This record gives sequence, structure tokens and C-alpha cells, in this order.
Amino acid sequence: MTMAQVSSAAEARISSDQLYLDDLHAGQRFTSGTYRLDVAQIKAFALQFDPQPFHTDEHAAERTFFKGLAASGWHTAAITMRLNVESGPPLAGGFVGAGGELSWPAPARPGDVLHVESEVVEVTPSRSRPDRGTIVLLSRTINQRGDIVLIQKAKLVVPRKVAA
Amino acid sequence: MTMAQVSSAAEARISSDQLYLDDLHAGQRFTSGTYRLDVAQIKAFALQFDPQPFHTDEHAAERTFFKGLAASGWHTAAITMRLNVESGPPLAGGFVGAGGELSWPAPARPGDVLHVESEVVEVTPSRSRPDRGTIVLLSRTINQRGDIVLIQKAKLVVPRKVAA
Repeated sequence: MTMAQVSSAAEARISSDQLYLDDLHAGQRFTSGTYRLDVAQIKAFALQFDPQPFHTDEHAAERTFFKGLAASGWHTAAITMRLNVESGPPLAGGFVGAGGELSWPAPARPGDVLHVESEVVEVTPSRSRPDRGTIVLLSRTINQRGDIVLIQKAKLVVPRKVAA
Repeated sequence: MTMAQVSSAAEARISSDQLYLDDLHAGQRFTSGTYRLDVAQIKAFALQFDPQPFHTDEHAAERTFFKGLAASGWHTAAITMRLNVESGPPLAGGFVGAGGELSWPAPARPGDVLHVESEVVEVTPSRSRPDRGTIVLLSRTINQRGDIVLIQKAKLVVPRKVAA
């Protein structure tokens, strides 16, 4: 069973409505839609937030650590957020991050078609706030060749049903 | 002695040239320039990468977890990158991140004037690659009231002088 099939099965079992903390459990998986990354997007993001030659100039990028134009890691993270918000787990209250860990095993490149595979790895009701809790969501952002361009372990605040 | 004074002293001691791994040591501190965040920037970033009401709509944001318009955490991270690239430690080879941890203790809001205070906390030459190593850089992104809006511990790849 592929991760996509696991995810579809999981999605079929759960409501299409928003997910509260009470609806979530470790092992639940979700697969996002796709996002196509191009040269213009890479340069536009980099000029605004990460103006370094390996993100802004194909020719200069050849002579750098990246050996060619690469998306800013923050651009990859931002695209991952968009994919999760639009087609990841439909969390009640939205994606509210408290923090997390991330790594970029490979750079995202022009022409990459990215999607996100996410898994709930922890669900923790708050001891002091009965209306909420946190989950840890492990997301992998993957290109069309199966290369992982971002691994992210995010701690998210999720409301409980009692609050609804 | 404030952190800004420590930083200025540190900057005065080091060359204005690019810093190689060999130039870096735990305890070195750097303070960036500033970046003013406004409503239009918050909405523009969010519409592109994090389209949730608390980042795109002042009125809807009032009734959410954030109780008012807040910048996407990825926007805050991207601004932090820009401040570090433009006016943080002048790393030889630029800012090349392998990964890290981040947390958002408070949201960044419209009108915030942000700066970044960074400290080198680890310097590790590579065992297998004599031309490089890694550092861990702890960065705090701080607004004009002293609220910390992002804490980031980044593992960065830095070339050694032997490679120059």
C-alpha cells in the first residue's frame, strides 16, 4: 500500500468537516494537492526575502554550493504551508503553529512539482486549557522524482470539540 | 552591557570581510538592521502562502486565536532570513541552511519594526570534508517593544579558509 493509498483510506474514514483535537490520532495521514515551482517564482521570492546568488541568478548559481538555481528553503517552507492549508488536514481553527523542526534534505528546483505527505505523530490535550491541545504533524514535501525537499515536524494548536 | 553593545563590540573586533568557519567561534554576536512590517505586506504574503483569515482579514482575525491580524509565521521567518542575509553575520558562501528548529513565542503584527539578534553557539569542522563545516546560529527576531516573535536555531554550512 503506498502512502497515497493509506492517505486516501484515512481520508475516506474521516468526515469531510473540520477536524478537532478529538478527531485526531497518531498515524492519521494526509496527502496534499500539488504546486508547480518555476524560475520566476524562485527569483521573486528570493529577491524579496533571500537575495543570494544561488536563488536569484542561474549563471552565478552554477558556481555555488547548489550548482544551479535552487529555491530558498523558506520559499519551500512557505509552499508547504500553502499546500497544507489548502489541501492538507482540515484542522478546525486552521494551521496555528507554535514551533517545530525543519530540514531541507535536497533543494527544490525550477520545474519541480511539489506535494506534501503529512502524518499525525502526537496528540496532546492541554492540561490547563480544556478547550484545546496540540498535535505534532510530520510533513514531507516531495518533488515529482520522489526527492524530499523539506521535512518538517510542526507543533500545532488545535481546538477541542468542547469549545465549538 | 546590552546585547546591542555586546554585538557592536564583537563586530568591531572582527573584519568587515566575509567570515569563514575558521573566523567563527561560540559567543560571537551580531545585530541586524530593521524591517518595518505593514498590513499590506502581511496580507500579500498570506494570500500567496498562508491564506488563513487571521493573516488576511483584520475583522475576521479579531474572532480567532490571534485576536487581530498577525503575520504568517513563515513571513516572520522569511523576513528574518532577509535581515540575516543583508545585515547579519557576513558568512563566506552566504547563508546555506541544512535545517533547524524554530518557534514563534508571539505573533508579528502590523506596524512592528523587527530586527534580529544572533549568536554563534557551535562551530563544527566537517570530518569528511576539509573544505567546510557547520555552525549553529541562534537568532531571535524582536519587535520595537522587545517582544520576541521568532526564535530560530539554524544549522548552517560554512566554507573553511582552505577552500578559498
